[in-house]
Amino acid sequence: MISKILIANRGEIAVRIIRACREMGIETVAIYSEADKESMHVYLADEAVCVGPAKTQDSYLNIGNIISATVLTKAQAIHPGFGFLSENGKFAKMCSECNIAFIGPDAETIENMGNKAKAREIMIKAGVPVVPGCEGTIDSEDQALKEATRIGYPVMLKASAGGGGRGIRIVREEKDLISSFRNAKSEAKAAFGDDSMYMEKFIEEPRHVEFQILGDSFGNVVYLGERDCSIQRRNQKVLEEAPSPVMTEELRREMGEAAVRAAKAVNYKNAGTIEFLLDKHGNYYFMEMNTRIQVEHGITEMVTGVDLVKEQIKIASGNKLSFNQSDIKIKGHAIECRINAENPEKNFMPSPGEIKYFHVPGGPGVRLDSAAYTGYNIPPNYDSMIGKLIAYGKDRAEAINIMERALGEFIIDGIDTNVDFQYEVINNEKFIKGKYNTSFIEKELKH
Amino acid sequence: MISKILIANRGEIAVRIIRACREMGIETVAIYSEADKESMHVYLADEAVCVGPAKTQDSYLNIGNIISATVLTKAQAIHPGFGFLSENGKFAKMCSECNIAFIGPDAETIENMGNKAKAREIMIKAGVPVVPGCEGTIDSEDQALKEATRIGYPVMLKASAGGGGRGIRIVREEKDLISSFRNAKSEAKAAFGDDSMYMEKFIEEPRHVEFQILGDSFGNVVYLGERDCSIQRRNQKVLEEAPSPVMTEELRREMGEAAVRAAKAVNYKNAGTIEFLLDKHGNYYFMEMNTRIQVEHGITEMVTGVDLVKEQIKIASGNKLSFNQSDIKIKGHAIECRINAENPEKNFMPSPGEIKYFHVPGGPGVRLDSAAYTGYNIPPNYDSMIGKLIAYGKDRAEAINIMERALGEFIIDGIDTNVDFQYEVINNEKFIKGKYNTSFIEKELKH
Repeated sequence: MISKILIANRGEIAVRIIRACREMGIETVAIYSEADKESMHVYLADEAVCVGPAKTQDSYLNIGNIISATVLTKAQAIHPGFGFLSENGKFAKMCSECNIAFIGPDAETIENMGNKAKAREIMIKAGVPVVPGCEGTIDSEDQALKEATRIGYPVMLKASAGGGGRGIRIVREEKDLISSFRNAKSEAKAAFGDDSMYMEKFIEEPRHVEFQILGDSFGNVVYLGERDCSIQRRNQKVLEEAPSPVMTEELRREMGEAAVRAAKAVNYKNAGTIEFLLDKHGNYYFMEMNTRIQVEHGITEMVTGVDLVKEQIKIASGNKLSFNQSDIKIKGHAIECRINAENPEKNFMPSPGEIKYFHVPGGPGVRLDSAAYTGYNIPPNYDSMIGKLIAYGKDRAEAINIMERALGEFIIDGIDTNVDFQYEVINNEKFIKGKYNTSFIEKELKH
Repeated sequence: MISKILIANRGEIAVRIIRACREMGIETVAIYSEADKESMHVYLADEAVCVGPAKTQDSYLNIGNIISATVLTKAQAIHPGFGFLSENGKFAKMCSECNIAFIGPDAETIENMGNKAKAREIMIKAGVPVVPGCEGTIDSEDQALKEATRIGYPVMLKASAGGGGRGIRIVREEKDLISSFRNAKSEAKAAFGDDSMYMEKFIEEPRHVEFQILGDSFGNVVYLGERDCSIQRRNQKVLEEAPSPVMTEELRREMGEAAVRAAKAVNYKNAGTIEFLLDKHGNYYFMEMNTRIQVEHGITEMVTGVDLVKEQIKIASGNKLSFNQSDIKIKGHAIECRINAENPEKNFMPSPGEIKYFHVPGGPGVRLDSAAYTGYNIPPNYDSMIGKLIAYGKDRAEAINIMERALGEFIIDGIDTNVDFQYEVINNEKFIKGKYNTSFIEKELKH
């Protein structure tokens, strides 16, 4: 068993991983940038190493410094969390070359799944439904026009190296294609250093339904039900729930088995997520695979009773999965609201600064994963997530009621937050009925 | 359905009840004493009424003012919580006379179970094992001597009107009997205004194992498993867990069925608890019935998935229980640590005053029921409980690990607390092995 782990991340997810380690009796090493000296993950870890200045490239993406910190502190493994280096195949490979266990899949798997065009090819071979689209990347404007005509409008342009909603354009008519193609390419270049693009059919009013999987080093893969992440703003998830309000037992089995096929096709080890688009008719299409723990993993934990971060560590330690598919039962309902330091009235502008007063909701059915505290100064350098508020109830109606109650108790003074905005979401009639898709926020909320 | 409830209590349990009401869409009225103006339950309720000065007798025990507040605010029901008027038959009767639903059993049931001697008689008739002891009360010193000889030393003297560990004496030899009898009587007189005593066999090294029951107005009664509350200090519970580390499926069924017999013998409605002593040989004896929600109800909620406070309200609204015995499954393990404002180094002296900084643990498996906040001034007038920290894991070992982690994250500045003491308890080898009884703290911890 791994006995010391360096967490190559910050904030809430670093705290989440430290908590799991502490409960498992595993020593922890935090890393931090100069802007994060007073971050909770630094206080909670057994050791902490500064890996560079505030700028992400120089600290949380500084592979050399992070590997050095690991070697210096004699940590045997690195947990990358999400974002930063979590889906960087080069980093995973370097870990392995330095004899450090990377808590995630192999570098090759990361690279295969990180390349959207390649992932698509693999899924087609594995018999996993994909959105009709081009084979390989689109290398010229001419090819873009031809492919769009073949697939049929509306089409979606996506950056091969993309993620987090960047480098994406929806094109409804031929006249807009070239300009969108150029814009998406330059956005992709800036965000990922790679401007290769692919194109697919744009599915109208889809739901974003993703399946959590766990795979061990012995070829066992199980799925742990789905999460509905359709409540998004500009392709960024805002609220997630498990199970999906539109899921049936039968469809869950079918999609879950497709997710397992997808994972097995790339020899998947550790925790991963297969994202699907689900249309109104119950057709589902592979969107992408996230080869890491997700932000919203907590709601799966609530409804399955499986601690995903602990499972990640056990798998990376070489353990066999201690359960099989038939052991996984979905019980109750969980909703997660992402609580962000941002101002919904000002186009969700980030609102860094000092949290003057932080009072969190409690009581039955409430879980808060957060790294914030009274007096914490949110640096302007990183994402604006303050915490993830999770409500768990015996059914969806109760989970919504608990979330409403918990949001009402939350006090965060000194900065702007989206707490009231989340309150609006869960009080929306269509949300309450479960009748929503990825355009919910755009269409339903005046923001 | 009841649509407006007055909560005749304060602090944490008042907050717990307000939370349940809010999730059910029920309006709430808080009551408060002059010392509790800035209490969280006052902030969270829809309305709040001051019922008198700090002194308990004049506010939280002031039946006239509380009934008036209920009538004035047009609340249809009163939830008494625990302590204060929760087991006062006269109060329950007055509620019923004023056409206010009392969220608890009938006045007659409360009175029968509140009188320890009478409760014992009823249990014997119902075939529930009781500790060998006297029939009725002990009315003279002479009778005390005779009964003790008949039962056999060691014996225990208990106040008939007792509760909370007051008015109790253990007598191991005849020479100590009379003085103990006199002391217990005068303590009972002072605490309860009633000095009638009874006597029973003192069970050596017992565990305190109690069964949660729920009964509706249609004669349905179910048990929701047990709680082990053996970790006590001077008969005050310190830490509780569910299930009991020594429980077997078979014994649970046997004791659970005895608990149901006990409840049915008194036409029990609403939530109640049957406390048993469990000896080393698996013999169990009825100790007393608490005719109200217990402090430690949360751990039963965690392992059964049943919200007991919501069930109380549904039952009082005239609903039938929505589940039967076979629906109740014990899943996982929950531990509760009572977090008190007290100094374990100074004989657990209460430590009221301002909480300068309050930072609570979070993450998976952690529930905190509390009414405290940064800046809250704990008044010296009431009990010292700041909150109830609950850890829930898939098994006992995980629950202990989560509790240890959570206690480590808890920051309460400005006052003394028992957080470190609880840390000692859960790190004690005998506790970890589950090998403990009611004398654990006295024998194992140097306090």
